[in-house]
Amino acid sequence: MHFSEPLPLQSGAALADYTLVYETYGSLNADRSNAVLVCHALNASHHVAGSYEGKAKSEGWWNNMVGPGKALDTDRFFVIGVNNLGSCFGSTGPMHNNPATGKPYGASFPVVTVEDWVHAQARLADRLGIQKFAAVMGGSLGGMQALAWSVLYPSRIAHSLVIASTPKLSAQNIAFNDVARQAILTDPDYHDGDFYAHGVVPKRGLRVARMIGHITYLSNDDMAEKFGRDLRNGDYQFGFGVDFEIESYLRYQGDKFSEYFDANTYLLITKALDYFDPARANGGDLAAALANTQAEFLVVSFSTDWRFAPDRSREIVQALVKNQRRVTYAEIDAPHGHDAFLLDDARYMGVVRAYYDKIWHQLGATLPTPVALGEAA
Amino acid sequence: MHFSEPLPLQSGAALADYTLVYETYGSLNADRSNAVLVCHALNASHHVAGSYEGKAKSEGWWNNMVGPGKALDTDRFFVIGVNNLGSCFGSTGPMHNNPATGKPYGASFPVVTVEDWVHAQARLADRLGIQKFAAVMGGSLGGMQALAWSVLYPSRIAHSLVIASTPKLSAQNIAFNDVARQAILTDPDYHDGDFYAHGVVPKRGLRVARMIGHITYLSNDDMAEKFGRDLRNGDYQFGFGVDFEIESYLRYQGDKFSEYFDANTYLLITKALDYFDPARANGGDLAAALANTQAEFLVVSFSTDWRFAPDRSREIVQALVKNQRRVTYAEIDAPHGHDAFLLDDARYMGVVRAYYDKIWHQLGATLPTPVALGEAA
Repeated sequence: MHFSEPLPLQSGAALADYTLVYETYGSLNADRSNAVLVCHALNASHHVAGSYEGKAKSEGWWNNMVGPGKALDTDRFFVIGVNNLGSCFGSTGPMHNNPATGKPYGASFPVVTVEDWVHAQARLADRLGIQKFAAVMGGSLGGMQALAWSVLYPSRIAHSLVIASTPKLSAQNIAFNDVARQAILTDPDYHDGDFYAHGVVPKRGLRVARMIGHITYLSNDDMAEKFGRDLRNGDYQFGFGVDFEIESYLRYQGDKFSEYFDANTYLLITKALDYFDPARANGGDLAAALANTQAEFLVVSFSTDWRFAPDRSREIVQALVKNQRRVTYAEIDAPHGHDAFLLDDARYMGVVRAYYDKIWHQLGATLPTPVALGEAA
Repeated sequence: MHFSEPLPLQSGAALADYTLVYETYGSLNADRSNAVLVCHALNASHHVAGSYEGKAKSEGWWNNMVGPGKALDTDRFFVIGVNNLGSCFGSTGPMHNNPATGKPYGASFPVVTVEDWVHAQARLADRLGIQKFAAVMGGSLGGMQALAWSVLYPSRIAHSLVIASTPKLSAQNIAFNDVARQAILTDPDYHDGDFYAHGVVPKRGLRVARMIGHITYLSNDDMAEKFGRDLRNGDYQFGFGVDFEIESYLRYQGDKFSEYFDANTYLLITKALDYFDPARANGGDLAAALANTQAEFLVVSFSTDWRFAPDRSREIVQALVKNQRRVTYAEIDAPHGHDAFLLDDARYMGVVRAYYDKIWHQLGATLPTPVALGEAA
């Protein structure tokens, strides 16, 4: 979907025009009440569910969650996945040409925030003729968007599902992001963000950034269980190649990531994470920041998530309770750390399924009679 | 102290000849029973205590612990600080010439282990005429050396003080070390370890490595307390410079470190950490590995240390208890994470002081009548 109305950004800059890439699953019902927006996290995209025909291994990133008969049942709900601005998976981002210069934006792509993304998503909803979402849902950075929706467009969202998220990053969270950024920014192949023109990619920096990130996505216990001190070649090699399986795994993850992810996007998205802090405008009072919300909430955290630990979710729950909002909170005892929000877990999926059942019954529990998109708002 | 007898290493290689730089504090007593060896961790040296004349800010790294009247009282004990092989603070290391080639070792400096260091330290003790240490003491990687001493030279060590340490690194510990190594190894200025010949230093890699390490030395709580989300310039800058104080702090630490630390040394020392695993030869049975120890032990951990958490110290304690060794264990409730072992804390210092009091009384509680070093073994 192309937009030619400029989008004013939190930074004071504006995007003159832009494109948002999105996918939809299921059908919008006649009263346009069954739409669910799924927001993505750091390295995901609009491709939430299903597979592309003829493309092996093209399952969407939340394919275990979203689809016919799944926890978010696309027989019942009309689901939208949208790629955020600044990403490298289709929506306007740093690798696209700046219409003002005719050259790729590179590092000059404006720094975008979670709130900017939400405003862009709201315009997409307008175009699709969706006045109010049955739910906005996301994990991690996606959960921040679901929370921001409830603050920025309180009347346009009936339910907010905030999973494995936080009301703001801690100093330690920011520290990990900044080291990752420094690895990219100091890679000689970064060329101040204009690496496209040099025909290179700052792979070393991206690789290290991803390795750092990946450590924080897994739990200490899970890593111990999966890799422990297992050796790749049976004995110590007394060199700087691979000794331990965990080294091999992380280097592989880093290599793979550096092949497909854009360095400027990585910088932008980590900044969006760092900047998210809805309580900031209220002197740090999260309850005050959430006072105008109207949605009902599902907040989910995972016991071994040390990136956005259960404590951080409880801060959100407490602020909502203080406002007498309806909030369901589930703390899932799961071994997989932050990554748990992407993985199959019977209790987790059960909680989400039950929550969507509730929404479905609130909507009248009838299967949608499809209407065309964009007909009327 | 120069050694011309080759030192066989755990890797199967050998160092043909080498120099160990050391400092001593206090006086050796007549029966040579009051010597304490202090072992250093990743980025420290033989300079444990005191200051160099005319040099401001030259306090030793454990100056709050070691000195006249301090917890490790140099009026009572003869303290030795020794710089380990492979370091960049004086003892033979990668920046020194390989006698076989006449060129700096660089990356060809053999990978050394905690056990190799202990054997080298034992030779130094021989030369100094010290048959048995009253104590060997260290924190973190230094604690591994204190533990290894009790295994490799059970009759030459009366007490082992193992502080903020672990019997082996976890997968997560190794992961952080390997990301740091990858940052260095992939820095174009590393030149396969021969950067000395190119007149450059892989500062980008060292800087990122140090930033990663530093995050793991501090506790989440301490970082939140000290930095939180404090901004450097009052508001978001919407760029990739410094926004948050924590970024400024970590970048400064990284810059400083990259100015003085050797990249090859960093690789070597992190490998020594990764490889330490005394239970490995006993099929993972730490109690079996510690069965031949004769020393008494003080084991200390810190509540907020998530690098080498209290659980890891308890593994050592349990293995010692299983062997009916005398062991004192203190878990200090301190906010400062792994770094706590270097910091002033009344309870921590009190425990160490009391423990040295015990040793002092075991030795007869008489002030040393100095003897010359190296007189007789």
